[in-house]
Amino acid sequence: MANLDSVLACLDLNLDRSVARLSELLRIASISTDPAHAAECRQAAEYLAGDLAAIGFDASVRDTPGHPMVVAHHDGPAGAPHVLFYGHYDVQPVDPIAEWRTGPFEPVVETRPDGTRCIAARGSADDKGQLMTFIEACRAFKAETGGLPCRVTIFLEGEEESGSPSLNPFLDANRAELSADVALVCDTNMWDRETPAISTGLRGLVGEEVVVRAASRDLHSGYYGGAARNPVHVLAKIIADLHDETGRVAIPGFYDGVDELPQAVRTSWQALGMSDEAFLEPVGLKLPAGESGRSVLEQIWSRPTAEVNGISGGYTGKGFKTVIAAEATAKISFRLVFSQDPERIRAAFRRFVEERLPADCRAEFHPHGGSPAIQLPFDSPVLETAKAALSDEWPKPAVMIGMGGSIPVVGEFKQRLGMDSLLVGFGLADDAIHSPNEKYELTSFHKGQRSWARILAALGAR
Amino acid sequence: MANLDSVLACLDLNLDRSVARLSELLRIASISTDPAHAAECRQAAEYLAGDLAAIGFDASVRDTPGHPMVVAHHDGPAGAPHVLFYGHYDVQPVDPIAEWRTGPFEPVVETRPDGTRCIAARGSADDKGQLMTFIEACRAFKAETGGLPCRVTIFLEGEEESGSPSLNPFLDANRAELSADVALVCDTNMWDRETPAISTGLRGLVGEEVVVRAASRDLHSGYYGGAARNPVHVLAKIIADLHDETGRVAIPGFYDGVDELPQAVRTSWQALGMSDEAFLEPVGLKLPAGESGRSVLEQIWSRPTAEVNGISGGYTGKGFKTVIAAEATAKISFRLVFSQDPERIRAAFRRFVEERLPADCRAEFHPHGGSPAIQLPFDSPVLETAKAALSDEWPKPAVMIGMGGSIPVVGEFKQRLGMDSLLVGFGLADDAIHSPNEKYELTSFHKGQRSWARILAALGAR
Repeated sequence: MANLDSVLACLDLNLDRSVARLSELLRIASISTDPAHAAECRQAAEYLAGDLAAIGFDASVRDTPGHPMVVAHHDGPAGAPHVLFYGHYDVQPVDPIAEWRTGPFEPVVETRPDGTRCIAARGSADDKGQLMTFIEACRAFKAETGGLPCRVTIFLEGEEESGSPSLNPFLDANRAELSADVALVCDTNMWDRETPAISTGLRGLVGEEVVVRAASRDLHSGYYGGAARNPVHVLAKIIADLHDETGRVAIPGFYDGVDELPQAVRTSWQALGMSDEAFLEPVGLKLPAGESGRSVLEQIWSRPTAEVNGISGGYTGKGFKTVIAAEATAKISFRLVFSQDPERIRAAFRRFVEERLPADCRAEFHPHGGSPAIQLPFDSPVLETAKAALSDEWPKPAVMIGMGGSIPVVGEFKQRLGMDSLLVGFGLADDAIHSPNEKYELTSFHKGQRSWARILAALGAR
Repeated sequence: MANLDSVLACLDLNLDRSVARLSELLRIASISTDPAHAAECRQAAEYLAGDLAAIGFDASVRDTPGHPMVVAHHDGPAGAPHVLFYGHYDVQPVDPIAEWRTGPFEPVVETRPDGTRCIAARGSADDKGQLMTFIEACRAFKAETGGLPCRVTIFLEGEEESGSPSLNPFLDANRAELSADVALVCDTNMWDRETPAISTGLRGLVGEEVVVRAASRDLHSGYYGGAARNPVHVLAKIIADLHDETGRVAIPGFYDGVDELPQAVRTSWQALGMSDEAFLEPVGLKLPAGESGRSVLEQIWSRPTAEVNGISGGYTGKGFKTVIAAEATAKISFRLVFSQDPERIRAAFRRFVEERLPADCRAEFHPHGGSPAIQLPFDSPVLETAKAALSDEWPKPAVMIGMGGSIPVVGEFKQRLGMDSLLVGFGLADDAIHSPNEKYELTSFHKGQRSWARILAALGAR
């Protein structure tokens, strides 16, 4: 702990210098989606590789068909774990430029009346400020102790904001080099200003389009209505059957691999104090949908869903047409959790539909992607270690939260490198990422550095 | 009966002359939808008024803002019923002209190898040939007996093929003159070549568009899926609830005013020998939908329906979008029978929807028309009289059939003049009305004349 204390003191002492380094990085307009900024993307990669080399990493800029990757290695003590840190140096475009109060690539530190400060620039929160929290922690360890408490690989991408076209080939081509015991991903938010968060789950996704066909052509509802099968009715019945009266998905086998939330996790989510009403009110809703008896946070973070994302059939233009359509279509997606298998879910859904088709109807299915959920075991030692370390740093204990959506790189790490991810980030909901006037709190930047120092020390001590 | 026999003999003797008169009418290109043919529409009206005056009717051509009407009156014996005969002298356009084997306005009588004959021309079956069956019957009565067995008003329209814009104002303006005990409408088909048919019911129609709204904007199904209400699910459940497991419409009160078919009618429909399979096979279906235990003919002729004619919600373009829509829309129509009240059905449907809405959803309704069913009482003396008269004339007994669709003038007669209609026609399914090479069988024309003579005699004798 003596070592950690001096590292933390070093970070405190050098905050202004770390802000200056971050500002240098923020001045580089590394907009990955715009070919006119390709040189700046490379410049950002080279800046970071240079900085990592200066710290003592074996760092290199690695070419891809798109923007380059940065890969840097540093040894750790014998027996210490090997961690791979992931971040991205590319940023979003800046439009609408007129809405920025200061230049998007002219970072400024703003001090509010209450004394709190933030740094405003494109990429400050997403993700340059976040990735620099980790690099600053490494720098302080090197300065104070001459080494790092873990073996560390740093892997920085330059195409995260433009679909990561080079990511998978690069992971496959460098599997051995990039595989570690765990990935540390710093691209997420805190629960609130005082409460650090670890995202322990990202839901997976299965997309299916189903077309139900009945008659060989559209029919006149006067001549055929009553006698002829209406595929909109067939489809509506299937959709209605998807959930039982308690809101559970009624597809047989759907919940295979879906565990109940550990009581400790449930309690911690309840302790967040997010009421269903507070969650739904901003979008004009009052009643939680989904499985009865489960909170909205539990729903979106830990429960699988079946949602119709689109439906169409028959006449949908202005006015009225008394037609019985020949076909009706629905796009349906399933959010997956825990170990639900996307292809088993897809097959179970198709059986569910087929079993409900009258003998003279046919169904046609079109798959639209499938990816499993990411679920860090709730009792993982890495998770417990990180949670304790974060709780030591911040005013309130760290919480484990879920994410309803997805971060693709986390799935690729798991699938291609067999590596779990620990998602820890220090962004706030009002950071305006992807919008004008993006900012990153200096508290996030400073205590983020300290948090990583604590996490690295704790992981190394295990 | 001596009188009727001589009238029938007169019709037999004069068939060639009646074909010549019909041919003269068919040569007039009275296409109502094309302003270039306005003069020919008037010419057809004048030809008919002149012919009726020659028979002994008090006949006039009556101007409207569109094409003129023909109205002709003839007295009947004291105590005899007053009938209003309706037909239309206008015809459909002739495109595609290249597909006609003979000129559409150059009527020719074609004799087939088996000796049967037909007259080919635009309007031969729809409706000039049909309306002339009635006029020829009147002519023969006048020739043989000096009078008519009923008081007869003949009302001929010239805008039936172009939406009848002048009809309702004309009916309203001439209510007293046009009101009779019953309307005779000759614009429908036989069941088959040997079996005459009386259409005893036309289904009514209520159209409703319903929009179900949930959240105040489209939501991301990752961030909100499970917790937020999906209006497509709400709408699908409502549609699924519309019918119970036996296919009955589940809206409370929906069947108020819906009578069971008299056993005699049901038996007569069964005797038609139309299997469910034979009805559905041409459109690629096998299983009758609708209420279980009822034949397809019973369904489309005598049972009310609830059909979704269109549905849409969420993302319906190519590919996939993981959205939870803010709203979903369905266009739903109800076919009505017997005395179902359109506005009560509409109100009951709206209540049905409202009762199924979660507390944070709203429904918006847009009405799209409503008209009651037309149902001639199955035990009406006029119906029985006509049925017996037709059965005397044709090889097989007359059948009472329904119509799934509608003939607007029948509803207007009922609503504006309080007058039921007797729908008797001699068209055949292969007459190609509205298509190239329209034809009318000479058997239809000849036995149609004899049928009206029998019906008029029987009505007059009651």
